[in-house]
Amino acid sequence: MAATIIDGRKIASEIQKNILDEITTLHNTHQTIPQITTIIIGNDPAATLYLRLRDSACKTVGIRSQHIELPMTVSEKTVLDTIHDLNINPDIHGIFLQFPIPKNLFPERLMNAIDPKKDVEGFHPLNMGRILIGDEHLVPCTPLAVLTILEHEHFGVKGKDVVVVNHSTVVGKPLTALLLNRNATVSICHVYTKHLKQYTSNADVLITAAGVPKLITTDHVKEGAFVIDVGIIQTKDGVCGDVDFQTVKEKAGKLTPVPGGVGPVTIACSLQNMMKTYRSCTST
Amino acid sequence: MAATIIDGRKIASEIQKNILDEITTLHNTHQTIPQITTIIIGNDPAATLYLRLRDSACKTVGIRSQHIELPMTVSEKTVLDTIHDLNINPDIHGIFLQFPIPKNLFPERLMNAIDPKKDVEGFHPLNMGRILIGDEHLVPCTPLAVLTILEHEHFGVKGKDVVVVNHSTVVGKPLTALLLNRNATVSICHVYTKHLKQYTSNADVLITAAGVPKLITTDHVKEGAFVIDVGIIQTKDGVCGDVDFQTVKEKAGKLTPVPGGVGPVTIACSLQNMMKTYRSCTST
Repeated sequence: MAATIIDGRKIASEIQKNILDEITTLHNTHQTIPQITTIIIGNDPAATLYLRLRDSACKTVGIRSQHIELPMTVSEKTVLDTIHDLNINPDIHGIFLQFPIPKNLFPERLMNAIDPKKDVEGFHPLNMGRILIGDEHLVPCTPLAVLTILEHEHFGVKGKDVVVVNHSTVVGKPLTALLLNRNATVSICHVYTKHLKQYTSNADVLITAAGVPKLITTDHVKEGAFVIDVGIIQTKDGVCGDVDFQTVKEKAGKLTPVPGGVGPVTIACSLQNMMKTYRSCTST
Repeated sequence: MAATIIDGRKIASEIQKNILDEITTLHNTHQTIPQITTIIIGNDPAATLYLRLRDSACKTVGIRSQHIELPMTVSEKTVLDTIHDLNINPDIHGIFLQFPIPKNLFPERLMNAIDPKKDVEGFHPLNMGRILIGDEHLVPCTPLAVLTILEHEHFGVKGKDVVVVNHSTVVGKPLTALLLNRNATVSICHVYTKHLKQYTSNADVLITAAGVPKLITTDHVKEGAFVIDVGIIQTKDGVCGDVDFQTVKEKAGKLTPVPGGVGPVTIACSLQNMMKTYRSCTST
């Protein structure tokens, strides 16, 4: 039986609708709207695409988004000063530091400098630590999108065998902690894993973010599994994910496509985080 | 072939010897020694035993350890004030909050109040988050003891199949992040796991902290696996771990006993953390 294909754009538009309603109310009652700033160092084409999509989503819901563009040669001090100014500016409710950053800058030092209250990405170690101790507040957008998709499908992970193919700081590690907080049995695979298929073929839920086209074939997937494809790879034939979509869709129970799956939900989750930082900054 | 039995007391005494040397030097050159304070609320018998062992270890290496005892009925404000006083006291280099704490107090709020620099347990969300982002600094003692045992045996986990039976904030979650930082393939099992044996019997390294006597039998263990038993259970026949020691020792490659395995190394790692907070507090 063919898998149910998850419509990420539909989920995203429901989230955006709720945010639009909240912002309209805010605007009418308090004459205020959330405002976020993105610090961009240099210009990475992939980052620029994501930024354009996010800015467009901000515009749709009425969040004000501005950029500060710094040259590739910028000093750490200048970036830290920029972050500090945004931290103390009461009109700015959220700060993004756009990755990648130049190799001579230390990402930890820059992320550490952002006020955790304004940390829209959820990458500050304090927000990461809150995930780990089960006191979830600002959660990185991609793991949050995965949870959102599972919840949207009313799929509880408690006691389920979940495999995550990614062990990065941005996706795999926080996602693992989030899944453990929900009592899933979690296995984390990656490029050093010896027997990938042995893990994935037993998974009730398979979440893959390897960035390798057609890494996941029918052999890797258990009949009826929920497969969430976080991979986004630009090929000469367009954008694709990690999953061999045409074959896996005949075996999986539910499957997210690329494009139109996790991507739009990630952007919508980013807007949710902006609302969260806005509420933290404006609550007394 | 019978497993090599890891002598945790020997590993611990090597660590203590190094700390004793460092403290002797400190005392001779700077006339200063590390001083830590433990806040104890009520009196839990298991906690008291651990505390006695730790205090005895402190005495052996020359770390000054004092207790502040508060009644079970203490208010949150009093505990927070106590923590604040210790945070600003330059003579105190490390703060422990002894668990368990009364149910009416919120552990997150109390842990959050401890200066992360003086957080000997590594439970502050900032220190937890640093583990998750791979910027490891103060690591909770039990996961640190597991890593220490692996390192002592020159056992690299990169690419190895590692199973952790525990998903708590104190052990399983930080340990998972630490193992992922070292590029192990990690599976985390717990009370909600459906097929425990299926996971554990494929593990190159099996770390168990379930607190269930004889949970792990030969059927659960792969021939030649490295088995680390973090369980400490008080039974009428004395202390035992999760592992059915007498049978598993004939199948495992390496095995930690209980008592005399992870326990003493955990205490030694606690001393290492005290030295780390001391260095953080005294470095300019």
